[in-house]
Amino acid sequence: MQCTTLRILKTSTLPLLPPALPMRFQITCELDYTATAPVIFLLNIRPKINSHQMLTDEKFTLVPQMPHVQHTDPVTGNRFDQITAQLPGVYHIRYQVIVETSALKLSMSEIPDMPLGEFELDVLALLYPSRYCQSDRLGNLAAKLFGEFETPLKQVQAIVKWISSHIDYVSGSTTSTTSSEDTLVERQGVCRDFAHLGIALCRALNIPARYFTGYAHELNPPDFHACFETWVGGRWLLWDATGLSSPDAVVHIGTGRDAADVSVCTSFGYLQLDRQTVICQALDPDYRKLSEEELQQVCISHS
Amino acid sequence: MQCTTLRILKTSTLPLLPPALPMRFQITCELDYTATAPVIFLLNIRPKINSHQMLTDEKFTLVPQMPHVQHTDPVTGNRFDQITAQLPGVYHIRYQVIVETSALKLSMSEIPDMPLGEFELDVLALLYPSRYCQSDRLGNLAAKLFGEFETPLKQVQAIVKWISSHIDYVSGSTTSTTSSEDTLVERQGVCRDFAHLGIALCRALNIPARYFTGYAHELNPPDFHACFETWVGGRWLLWDATGLSSPDAVVHIGTGRDAADVSVCTSFGYLQLDRQTVICQALDPDYRKLSEEELQQVCISHS
Amino acid sequence: MQCTTLRILKTSTLPLLPPALPMRFQITCELDYTATAPVIFLLNIRPKINSHQMLTDEKFTLVPQMPHVQHTDPVTGNRFDQITAQLPGVYHIRYQVIVETSALKLSMSEIPDMPLGEFELDVLALLYPSRYCQSDRLGNLAAKLFGEFETPLKQVQAIVKWISSHIDYVSGSTTSTTSSEDTLVERQGVCRDFAHLGIALCRALNIPARYFTGYAHELNPPDFHACFETWVGGRWLLWDATGLSSPDAVVHIGTGRDAADVSVCTSFGYLQLDRQTVICQALDPDYRKLSEEELQQVCISHS
Amino acid sequence: MQCTTLRILKTSTLPLLPPALPMRFQITCELDYTATAPVIFLLNIRPKINSHQMLTDEKFTLVPQMPHVQHTDPVTGNRFDQITAQLPGVYHIRYQVIVETSALKLSMSEIPDMPLGEFELDVLALLYPSRYCQSDRLGNLAAKLFGEFETPLKQVQAIVKWISSHIDYVSGSTTSTTSSEDTLVERQGVCRDFAHLGIALCRALNIPARYFTGYAHELNPPDFHACFETWVGGRWLLWDATGLSSPDAVVHIGTGRDAADVSVCTSFGYLQLDRQTVICQALDPDYRKLSEEELQQVCISHS
Repeated sequence: MQCTTLRILKTSTLPLLPPALPMRFQITCELDYTATAPVIFLLNIRPKINSHQMLTDEKFTLVPQMPHVQHTDPVTGNRFDQITAQLPGVYHIRYQVIVETSALKLSMSEIPDMPLGEFELDVLALLYPSRYCQSDRLGNLAAKLFGEFETPLKQVQAIVKWISSHIDYVSGSTTSTTSSEDTLVERQGVCRDFAHLGIALCRALNIPARYFTGYAHELNPPDFHACFETWVGGRWLLWDATGLSSPDAVVHIGTGRDAADVSVCTSFGYLQLDRQTVICQALDPDYRKLSEEELQQVCISHS
Repeated sequence: MQCTTLRILKTSTLPLLPPALPMRFQITCELDYTATAPVIFLLNIRPKINSHQMLTDEKFTLVPQMPHVQHTDPVTGNRFDQITAQLPGVYHIRYQVIVETSALKLSMSEIPDMPLGEFELDVLALLYPSRYCQSDRLGNLAAKLFGEFETPLKQVQAIVKWISSHIDYVSGSTTSTTSSEDTLVERQGVCRDFAHLGIALCRALNIPARYFTGYAHELNPPDFHACFETWVGGRWLLWDATGLSSPDAVVHIGTGRDAADVSVCTSFGYLQLDRQTVICQALDPDYRKLSEEELQQVCISHS
Repeated sequence: MQCTTLRILKTSTLPLLPPALPMRFQITCELDYTATAPVIFLLNIRPKINSHQMLTDEKFTLVPQMPHVQHTDPVTGNRFDQITAQLPGVYHIRYQVIVETSALKLSMSEIPDMPLGEFELDVLALLYPSRYCQSDRLGNLAAKLFGEFETPLKQVQAIVKWISSHIDYVSGSTTSTTSSEDTLVERQGVCRDFAHLGIALCRALNIPARYFTGYAHELNPPDFHACFETWVGGRWLLWDATGLSSPDAVVHIGTGRDAADVSVCTSFGYLQLDRQTVICQALDPDYRKLSEEELQQVCISHS
Repeated sequence: MQCTTLRILKTSTLPLLPPALPMRFQITCELDYTATAPVIFLLNIRPKINSHQMLTDEKFTLVPQMPHVQHTDPVTGNRFDQITAQLPGVYHIRYQVIVETSALKLSMSEIPDMPLGEFELDVLALLYPSRYCQSDRLGNLAAKLFGEFETPLKQVQAIVKWISSHIDYVSGSTTSTTSSEDTLVERQGVCRDFAHLGIALCRALNIPARYFTGYAHELNPPDFHACFETWVGGRWLLWDATGLSSPDAVVHIGTGRDAADVSVCTSFGYLQLDRQTVICQALDPDYRKLSEEELQQVCISHS
């Protein structure tokens, strides 16, 4: 008999939407892979297309030129390019696109409080523990550290603040099998680890949370980025516990339970990454990152 | 930059279906819970309804009588009863149903070999590691132990056999946070752990695998059961590495990546299980479990 | 090439000893074991004999009566009774003793500061990680939480305080394989887990620390107890992060790197504990536990 | 109440010693460290001196020249050089020595069988789990895989063979926190990991086992080496599950419970290793490594 105990889930009716915040980004991504044997690989590098992300001038080049297949996952909207490399050799991918996003900038007070109420079935899976987010072990810790905050929104804010002050960002300090448990013990990691810990702590408090990869404006050093979203007040709110990006300036690529779901490249057979270039630049020359103070007052949402 | 390496995925065209094997089961499930404070809980005890499971005489009783909500997950087909217990007290649930299943009984030779070919996007998530199935750490082990078997089907058979001879079934030996890694080290567990290890090993060999809970004919001791399915030859094939049930005699309740997705009861707030009764009986008096020898020759599928 | 990085170890000359604090305890311990096959077992239930623990009226009874062997470990001073149970059956052990301890009660200011200086080789092993105290993974966490405190003594005090406010004492919440990493993640445990976490954090800050089992005055519920010692200012100072006992009122049984070294019973073959009674009572009727306030000002040492 | 269950320990009287096998080795070790702040460090690079290892022409040079302290641990015999680097800068260590070892070469039949008998207290700690050898979790696995072998000697042989066929030697595949559990799951590692797994499995079968570092004849690539010893038949027998060295051609440096105890360098403060050279050459030009076949018949002991 298996039984999972979660805490009270509070939801709410969706408030009226404030006007969206349009922004445009120029994105370039180059990847060079070497295949030593026939290999099929799936890239997840194209931004999602939805009511908050409009793509123009999209250009995907593969050298050597060859047919390849595009897929869009009907549930998540994640977009894949599937390449069948039948010959050993070097495969160059160059992807360019301009993305117009329309994130909502909500003042904290606009996020409705969440009285005990209707349960949202479609976020249920995002309350459950996943490979790198062992929320099932973190109930006590989360309750002790963040249980006193009155609303889910304040709990998430406190979690982001706690992570940012207790975990060190150290490039190369973790591997692809590092999980939120490891990060709690070792207290260091990269964007992926910060997101995993945030997700695990939110789920432990019964706040649905998911992981997404993205292109972040002027990320330094340039790379793919990873952040997380929480379902609070009837919306997905965006958070970056590393502080390296501003949530309004991240273009979404893949969304999933954790990093297991949204690898940049999933290869069926061995494939070596030789070189990677990622550039994401806001086209508004006056764009400036939200400050830490602003992020205490303002939430960003795509829904 | 995150990158996942999987091995070659082989798929195939769907073969012609042999006639299905109809069976009828009488199921009774009783659960008594005590709530000490207001609590919302979701039960996942109703069998799925699909082309292989037909339900009749379904009866769900809740005492004290009160309205409750039924949900069916549109993606998985899992069926939930959501109960809002606003008053502390004891809640009795009694559920009865007759289920007619039509499993396919396929001889191993009917499962097509899987030449390198088209990728099936909808099973992609079932190749990725999950909370209790850390396939990302098992690549070497799986390749060394099972890599030599020529086809995915033979690999799965070898995995089931290996688990059944290397892991001891010991009631009470594990907890709700035990994972496939733990089972590999401690070499004991219950049905949930056997299924998790099977799934993790299959995924590590690039064979999509998922977890399901079910009602198993004359399971001893009576309880909910857990098994796993693998996507081989264009179908979901059913496996029970514990040997306690016969895969043709398991009625499916919930399907998911692992046990995290298919708890019998997910409560938002504390809820105590006081008593549980589970009965599942094949209505054909002549039914007899498939023998170990038969299970070397025959696969069961619901798809 | 293996290399371990520790932080600066500060030691000092031994200060003059203040007069010791004599206390007398009446201890009774009864253990009933069932052997189902021949088994040799080692009990570690007798208090140590040293300049701080004087034993009188010691009485060890074994029923059925049979010869058994006493050992004292020359390095640790731990005392063992080795029993060879050649016949299956029930073995009753009854142990009684009166112990006079002479703990030192030191005001914090009497513990010398520890300027950079001579390295003490005999405590080196107590800086290294052990089975249940993975200090090698806790360097960042310990430095971030406790690095700011100026002296090793203040660091240990802060560690004890942090554990006592961040970890819940929950009987039965852990098992014999639970380690300090688990406790950091799950935030609950019993005396053994509190001691392991204290030791791991101290070692991570380069403060030698060890584990000891003992009889604690009026422990509630009555059981064997576990605490830890740190090597600070040229002495072993005693700490109980659970707050259940007063360090001046704990009679030492076994000392080791962690619980692995000081099991109450180590059996070579299967042996079942049927019943256990442990009583430890200070003979001074006026004895009162040190208060939390006092324990902020006063340290207890046996050396 | 803490209780440890071990299996039956079999010991024996010490048989008459066959004549020892004298061998001479020329060892050179160079280490360059950079200190960026004052740091004290302990090197454990000098071979032990005992009845089986005689040292001549020992020469330890430190540049810049400065006084440093030598220690020998009275219990283990491990030899340390303690260097206090008060100034930042580069520290060059050059160590040279000729070692004459007198290992015993015993045919398997000379190792006495071990009837149930007297318990050896001084090896008790080497039955307990340690940081990297979690034997407390491996009881089932060890019993299932190796329980059928009749004697401890045959069990150890089977363990060494199993490790060598189930674990891949992959340089750089593990880190300083990798343990025997990880190696069982990931099935790859370096000499340290092979030794840890061997030790853990032996202890799980109640065979005392310990770790040692050494200089191995013509190790390729040249480095410090790590192997393990088991207490069987009244002696410490030497094993190298990696097969990279021949146990008769390894000069012992440090002995401990596992790698935690015998780091080449333990620094109190941050110290960076810039360069390392290790050379160990048997001086007998005719020396040849024991073959795999010989190692099925012959055991090497230093005691």
